[in-house]
Amino acid sequence: MLPAPAVKADLPPDPADPVVLARALIRAPSVTPDAEPAMALVADVLAAAGYAVERLDFADHGPRVANLYARIGEGAPNLCFAGHVDVVPPGDAAEWRHGPFAGDVAEGLLYGRGAVDMKGAVAASIAAALRYGRPQAGSLSFLITGDEEGPALDGTVRVVEALRARGERVDACILGEPTNPSAMGDAFKIGRRGSLSGILTVEGKQGHVAYPHLADNPIPRLVRLIAALTAAPLDEGSDFFPPSNLEVVSVDVGNPVFNVIPARAEARFNVRFNDHFTLASLQAEIRRRLGATGLAHHLAFRPGASESFRTEPGPFVDMVRAAVEAVTGRVPEASTSGGTSDARFIKDLCPVIEFGLVGRTMHQVDEASPVADIVALTQVYERIIRSYFAR
Amino acid sequence: MLPAPAVKADLPPDPADPVVLARALIRAPSVTPDAEPAMALVADVLAAAGYAVERLDFADHGPRVANLYARIGEGAPNLCFAGHVDVVPPGDAAEWRHGPFAGDVAEGLLYGRGAVDMKGAVAASIAAALRYGRPQAGSLSFLITGDEEGPALDGTVRVVEALRARGERVDACILGEPTNPSAMGDAFKIGRRGSLSGILTVEGKQGHVAYPHLADNPIPRLVRLIAALTAAPLDEGSDFFPPSNLEVVSVDVGNPVFNVIPARAEARFNVRFNDHFTLASLQAEIRRRLGATGLAHHLAFRPGASESFRTEPGPFVDMVRAAVEAVTGRVPEASTSGGTSDARFIKDLCPVIEFGLVGRTMHQVDEASPVADIVALTQVYERIIRSYFAR
Repeated sequence: MLPAPAVKADLPPDPADPVVLARALIRAPSVTPDAEPAMALVADVLAAAGYAVERLDFADHGPRVANLYARIGEGAPNLCFAGHVDVVPPGDAAEWRHGPFAGDVAEGLLYGRGAVDMKGAVAASIAAALRYGRPQAGSLSFLITGDEEGPALDGTVRVVEALRARGERVDACILGEPTNPSAMGDAFKIGRRGSLSGILTVEGKQGHVAYPHLADNPIPRLVRLIAALTAAPLDEGSDFFPPSNLEVVSVDVGNPVFNVIPARAEARFNVRFNDHFTLASLQAEIRRRLGATGLAHHLAFRPGASESFRTEPGPFVDMVRAAVEAVTGRVPEASTSGGTSDARFIKDLCPVIEFGLVGRTMHQVDEASPVADIVALTQVYERIIRSYFAR
Repeated sequence: MLPAPAVKADLPPDPADPVVLARALIRAPSVTPDAEPAMALVADVLAAAGYAVERLDFADHGPRVANLYARIGEGAPNLCFAGHVDVVPPGDAAEWRHGPFAGDVAEGLLYGRGAVDMKGAVAASIAAALRYGRPQAGSLSFLITGDEEGPALDGTVRVVEALRARGERVDACILGEPTNPSAMGDAFKIGRRGSLSGILTVEGKQGHVAYPHLADNPIPRLVRLIAALTAAPLDEGSDFFPPSNLEVVSVDVGNPVFNVIPARAEARFNVRFNDHFTLASLQAEIRRRLGATGLAHHLAFRPGASESFRTEPGPFVDMVRAAVEAVTGRVPEASTSGGTSDARFIKDLCPVIEFGLVGRTMHQVDEASPVADIVALTQVYERIIRSYFAR
């Protein structure tokens, strides 16, 4: 863990207004991994509101990653809002109708990189917490990282480790990733599939294509191994999850000429898997399918794999569903679809549910959120806080 | 065709000594496409011996390619020696025991780039022709190119075109490519398989690996198409040829990340095919195999494909076999194996047979030919010339 940096941000005039705060965050550029400008703003806003703010920065796997944990109140229960202030690159800024870091509002939309994913939601959660104030019993907290869009090796995973190591109690967490496919109230996420990536390599012997008996082409074997790997579905899905799915995402030889048989061929694959599998049982199934071919190969699983997880039905899930319904008028689907998020780390700390903005424009040019959605999300978060501490 | 360049070479003291001439050619570096130093030497040696030397240089497809056609004598029959003076790059010259362009002789071996492929054979054919002199009836000729190891678009193919266009009669050709796998007398080539290359492309739709229903992965289809293309042998070979053979030489997607389904996948393949197929019937068979899958794909055949060809059994083949046997004491195999050569162009001019040195070290570091082999090859060529004009 690194000492905290000494950056001071300009506080927005009213950080309890989520749109004002979201605009200020967008104007503090924070493309992964350099999230310092936006992180300093979050730190100063929370400190000014009476939060005990800790920076938990790490630089063990690359450039310094800004992380923050902030708490107000005493003891249990501790309700935590998690999120990230880093954003993906804007691409060609000239293609944007409004500058990606301008924070313009036009025709009811807040434009900017991170408007949806997820400075808008970070602003909504801070605004909701500031409006609520200090819990009379228990704690409100924030776990914010500056590396969710990057390798994520020195981000939330490290903060969770540090909090667990010192026995910090966190009872429930809301993560503000964009969970709604097309409108507020579509869905919240109660879990995520696991993810496992691997590289399958076949070695052969290089040679001239006119003398195939002197060479050994690895490509036909790789093709048969891929066929064996993908021949049958992994499962049919479960009560809470869609089917596990394996995609071969690349096959590469890189042979620039037509008259040489190559020495090596590789395939890369990724599996998104449900609770039918653990990482261990999935790896065993992949090994079994490849091994059944009898063909020599090398298989390497990539670091950073994650187990599937799910927050059990119960009062916390019901509370989030009720808050969304009360504000949006719609009963959200309890989803486990989509990619991974930092929820895969937070689940080791406490039950986690994800609910945020509408994801349609995330990572795109002209990323934008309706201002009304940011206001509604703030109301949902405030309602969750009130219900949580009213128990 | 370009005007002849004005380069003058230093003539070796005795060009009728094939080893002296081979050393001089090796010392005239001529890595494709810059073969001018070696070509100028060939031109001057032949001109000094009374040959009518024409330069037939072309630069329509890239840098200027040096070509030469030289003839001595009058009218038919015209026996032609063909070859190339360009060489492949030496690689790291420091790895050579003797400098690749030094032309050193050590322990009975002539070292140097081109010693085997094929300055040694060019020197042997010139030495043999110089020893024989001017035919009393008929012509002796040389067709030498400076781009056999490169794209070969402005080389022998253009000279053959030009000779045909003006009605130059050539009755038989000996091409001095290295045809012996391990010892002089192993084999001569009476034909070559054809070669056809193609690129098979499958288009899909890019998307996040967590949302496969929103994407369309082209890789599984490409894998099935490759399987269909390679499932059955093309044929079992013929009386004069080994079986036709298709090799998939590369499969490429180039997707650097594990969380994206790619939009496009391609495979590259090459077929070496015998006289069971023409280019047209082979292309039809490939289209049939791919089409039978019912899978959408794009197939593009590469330019530069060549038909298989074979010089019919008869007096010319018998004469070459007898000359090889008389000098080496071995009956050479009449082969059609191996890669392509400029014989694929020359066969449009006249029957062509290939016989040269031992190919083992060609294109390698320390390329070298026994001096005795160069002497023997000169004797074989001289014997062919004498038999040819004694008919």
